[in-house]
Amino acid sequence: MENRYDIAIIGSGPAGLEAAINCKIRNKNIIIFGREDLSNKLIKAPKVDNYLGFHGITGKELKDKFQKHIDDMGIEIVYERINNVYAMGEYFALMVDEKTYEASSVILATGMEYTKPLKGEEEFLGKGVGYCATCDAPLYKNKIVTIIGYNKEAEEEANYVNELTANLYYIPMYRGEYNLDKSIKVIKDKPVEISGDKKANKLILNNSQIETDGIFVLKDSVSPAQLVPGLEMESSHIKVDREMKTNIKGCFAAGDCVGKPYQYIKSAGEGQVAALSSVSYLDNKDRLNK
Amino acid sequence: MENRYDIAIIGSGPAGLEAAINCKIRNKNIIIFGREDLSNKLIKAPKVDNYLGFHGITGKELKDKFQKHIDDMGIEIVYERINNVYAMGEYFALMVDEKTYEASSVILATGMEYTKPLKGEEEFLGKGVGYCATCDAPLYKNKIVTIIGYNKEAEEEANYVNELTANLYYIPMYRGEYNLDKSIKVIKDKPVEISGDKKANKLILNNSQIETDGIFVLKDSVSPAQLVPGLEMESSHIKVDREMKTNIKGCFAAGDCVGKPYQYIKSAGEGQVAALSSVSYLDNKDRLNK
Repeated sequence: MENRYDIAIIGSGPAGLEAAINCKIRNKNIIIFGREDLSNKLIKAPKVDNYLGFHGITGKELKDKFQKHIDDMGIEIVYERINNVYAMGEYFALMVDEKTYEASSVILATGMEYTKPLKGEEEFLGKGVGYCATCDAPLYKNKIVTIIGYNKEAEEEANYVNELTANLYYIPMYRGEYNLDKSIKVIKDKPVEISGDKKANKLILNNSQIETDGIFVLKDSVSPAQLVPGLEMESSHIKVDREMKTNIKGCFAAGDCVGKPYQYIKSAGEGQVAALSSVSYLDNKDRLNK
Repeated sequence: MENRYDIAIIGSGPAGLEAAINCKIRNKNIIIFGREDLSNKLIKAPKVDNYLGFHGITGKELKDKFQKHIDDMGIEIVYERINNVYAMGEYFALMVDEKTYEASSVILATGMEYTKPLKGEEEFLGKGVGYCATCDAPLYKNKIVTIIGYNKEAEEEANYVNELTANLYYIPMYRGEYNLDKSIKVIKDKPVEISGDKKANKLILNNSQIETDGIFVLKDSVSPAQLVPGLEMESSHIKVDREMKTNIKGCFAAGDCVGKPYQYIKSAGEGQVAALSSVSYLDNKDRLNK
């Protein structure tokens, strides 16, 4: 398939970038998803002393070195947020709202900065709970929908979904002005639990409850287990071996998301190993298909 | 004990240096053994493109960055070659010719550039075969000793040992002028096998044989299994887990010596993990002793 990438890399911290560099050097057709600031964690670091080769550098300066490195190599980051990664056997489908990308191999370098799931959120995921309101909106025509929004971008999704639903509740998890249609009911209360029977039908908050047909949790990033169904975890980290292989064939992981210590050069080193393991996975696959 | 270091690091490539940086940041009393050029492999690299933060740098330039980093942090490398590391239970004894260093924990970052052992060399190690002629010389007073020398420094050891032995054979594994006492018999032939019964008593060469009481193999570096008796290997690499622990308590390893890919930032990342694991090992030990 022409539109299928060899390797998709999710995350633009040290692990993702080092993976991208190595895949590119090995002539793989890659796509890397990340942030404009590369790493939210890195740019906030006041001083980095333990990244060999740079002493007493600020996180921001180190981020600029990383950016220059990928720029020099012609690597461009796609600023999109992956909602889900599905292992389809021969390839992976990466869902970005209404778009789908395909890749033969995936490297997860998502870091550890994700919002903790609510009680019941993982249990009812796909059963009345979703992460992409835009994608699933048609299912909720004339129904009651609740959106828990962790950022400003969630407001846009809420306004779109509001055109279809009978009733829309919006629970902002941040402060500020809300740019929402007037018919949307804003509830300023802290969500505690999603409950239901076979499907989620209730959101319990600190001081109230909402009866609802569907709940969307719109956050910056989801945990790896939610991102990739079937991915084996070890407590809160992705389980990998020393080659950075996960339990899913063709899916590799590196960086903070695979375990401590949460350190830049440890992550970069793992990104390199994940990249070379992914390259070797693809080369072996090619050989078998010939 | 006052002269005991917290952590001894063997090797000054990216793994050893990154380990040293992290141990120092954690206020450990360290000693690092290495080479003046830091890494024989690195300085020969014409161009390094995959060390995140430096694009298109030469190995020599990268080595200078590494040197500056440790200089800035006041880390000084000891230019000595460790012959053996013995796990003594509470500490490690590191043997350098006639000197001994002590450390509570050891990080092996020895790389993969070591001379392959001869057939029989490992089998007879300690039984007529040794790596330090100076140390064991007294055992061979008035006996026949054979020295296989891989570098010029071996000549000095040969001249010293020659004062005691009845007969000394010297087999140079390099070309050039030999600065040896006249009574030393130089044999220009390729060693093939060390044989014997309970002890080594014969060196078999391509075109000749030598009956001998002892054989010293003097090379730049020995394999990790020879360096640290009891160390578990996995084919030609040191066996470690994801925390860079070896099978010996308090002994950690990182870099090329623990496995492929043989890459700089992979090694550095592992050096960091080994360092933090070693620090945590020492801190736990201290806590138990209080």
